[in-house]
Formats: sequence, structure tokens, C-alpha cells
Amino acid sequence: MLEDVYDDAYFMRKALAEARLAYERNEIPVGAVIVSNQQIIARSHNLTELLVDVTAHAEMQAITAASNFLGGKYLKNCTLYVTLEPCQMCAGALYWSQISRIVFAAPDELRGYLKMGVKLHPKTEVTMGVLKDEASALLKRFFMEKRNLN
Amino acid sequence: MLEDVYDDAYFMRKALAEARLAYERNEIPVGAVIVSNQQIIARSHNLTELLVDVTAHAEMQAITAASNFLGGKYLKNCTLYVTLEPCQMCAGALYWSQISRIVFAAPDELRGYLKMGVKLHPKTEVTMGVLKDEASALLKRFFMEKRNLN
Repeated sequence: MLEDVYDDAYFMRKALAEARLAYERNEIPVGAVIVSNQQIIARSHNLTELLVDVTAHAEMQAITAASNFLGGKYLKNCTLYVTLEPCQMCAGALYWSQISRIVFAAPDELRGYLKMGVKLHPKTEVTMGVLKDEASALLKRFFMEKRNLN
Repeated sequence: MLEDVYDDAYFMRKALAEARLAYERNEIPVGAVIVSNQQIIARSHNLTELLVDVTAHAEMQAITAASNFLGGKYLKNCTLYVTLEPCQMCAGALYWSQISRIVFAAPDELRGYLKMGVKLHPKTEVTMGVLKDEASALLKRFFMEKRNLN
């Protein structure tokens, strides 16, 4: 059945493809897509090193791009797929966006919004762990290689 | 004495001038400056409506601009002056920036980072209440006028 193709794993694979682009650019490999009506309306990956800007997380760029696409500040009927649990900043931005749903892959037990106690908007549903192993493996590989270079 | 001129109130007045620019543009009037070595290296005001982007808070733009000026991601020896207590998103961004000091004017008892429990970086000192009455009065005037229009 056609609709089964466009499931959470499908869109998370697109976010993972973005994370791999970040990896190739020597950025912490986190990628994101925002989906509305089963259509990707924003894709982005972490660019904090390239842009020399701590605010250039994948999610922040995706929120800006999706708002631009929609012509509105609020991400109603939108789902963010992101390969790593959002941080305080990104969860705070997602709060303001009133996004309908967030799906993330790998948990961030150190600096994720859950550990930090950041509140999402009451309208926002969360699904976690989709393609968690793939996303975690990519992050681990990145940090392992970084460590070996230093 | 010359150095007394450049005190917290001096720089907060500059942030308030930015907040007034936001007000004139029909934006929630919040302004910010970032100071390094008693020099303003970034100034900004809230542009969420004009840019149709929830991430366009004064602080976020100031962080990006200051990093650009410094050529580095970390805002060491920098002070942010902002007319309203930062929200979750902005406090999260300030956490990543490792900024040395934050000075804010008016508290945001509803959605400020203190109420929301967001953590700043351990290196960051905070001073609150500088020109609080001026900043609060401007915000109150804005919301009062908005209410009367609707």
C-alpha cells in the first residue's frame, strides 16, 4: 500500500541523509526534515562550525525554512524529524513554533531537552527512538574519529 | 570619571533604543546589545513578525552577529544586555555560546528561562532588573495598544 511507504522511518531516513551531509562537512552529524501533508517542506543539517554560529543547529534552520515555505510562523500540521534529541535552544524554538509533532532518533542523555527539563508546547506530540541505532552509530563514529585526530 | 559612563545602565539604554525600534515596527518591543571590552559589537531587536520566524528574537540575532564580529562561536568576555528576560530558546542559545555575562531589564514571569527552569552555562553570570521600569513600561504600552486595536 502506497501510504505505508511514507512512514516515520521513511522521513527519518531523509533526516539521516542530511546528518551524513553534516558528517562530510566535519560538523556534528545531526540532520532534520520538516514534513507537512506527507511532503518535505524543509531539510537541513547542523552547520555550527561552517557558519561559526552556535544557533545553526539543524532544527533551527528547519524551523526558519518551514516558516518561510508556509508563509506563517506556526508549524501547524507539521512534523519535525531529527536524528538527535533537541537541545534546550531547539526545544525552546519548537515551543514557540507550536509544531504538531516531533520525531527524534537518538536520545541525548547529557544535553537533550528531556534531561534539561525544557517544556514543549502542549499541542506538540513526541515520538522517540525511530532509527535510533543508525543515528547513534553515525554520531559515535564522528566523535571516535575526532578523538583519534587529537 | 570616564569609565563610569559605560556602566550597565548605559548599555541597557542602548538595548532599550533597539526595543523602541521593534516597537515602531509593530514587533513585541525587545532589544539587545552585546558588549565586548566596553564596545558594542552587536545590536538587534525582535523581528519575529517581519521575518515570519519564531527564532528571530533579539538575543538570537545578537548572538549570530557577535560571533560573526568575533570570528568565533564562543562569546568569551562578552556581556549581553537585553530588555526582557530571555526565553527557553534564547537561554539555550546563550548556554551554547558560553557568554560571560547576561544583564536583563524586565522579568518574564510567564515564559522567562528562570520560570521554565532552563540552565545557563556555569561560566555565565547574571544581573537582573537594570532599567526594569523603562523596559516593562514599553512592553505594557505595546500590549495595551494591541488589545485596544482588537
